[in-house]
Amino acid sequence: MAKAVFYHAGCRVCVSAERMVVEYLDPAQVTTEIVHLGEQSARIGEAEASGVVSVPALVLDGQVYHINYGASLEDVKKG
Amino acid sequence: MAKAVFYHAGCRVCVSAERMVVEYLDPAQVTTEIVHLGEQSARIGEAEASGVVSVPALVLDGQVYHINYGASLEDVKKG
Repeated sequence: MAKAVFYHAGCRVCVSAERMVVEYLDPAQVTTEIVHLGEQSARIGEAEASGVVSVPALVLDGQVYHINYGASLEDVKKG
Repeated sequence: MAKAVFYHAGCRVCVSAERMVVEYLDPAQVTTEIVHLGEQSARIGEAEASGVVSVPALVLDGQVYHINYGASLEDVKKG
């Protein structure tokens, strides 16, 4: 079973991407954790260490998939 | 059953994103067509009409999800 983490910051782009991730990733193959970096800023370092540079981003099998040119992690840090 | 089209142009970013799409989208909910725009340039117009501006991109339920800042569609047109 693969583990996925979907990082976002609650923006409109993020909400639509989250719906796709939650609704269409195969639950038989992937467990997906949703992390709102605006509310859990302590996990920004973890996202950065995974290679995330903007949100929304899906980290799956060690690969980072940035979705739709969202807010940069630097902007998320500024809050 | 939702229909997804994954547009790409064969680049390294595309290959890793394609693997994620093909491997982890739920086959019970989504049928996914893979379109290599380098080989099927006649379908660039269709991708553009769907809102695709760069590849790789997944079009699912009428929503476009650009993945990982790939090549612009303008560059793909130049071949």
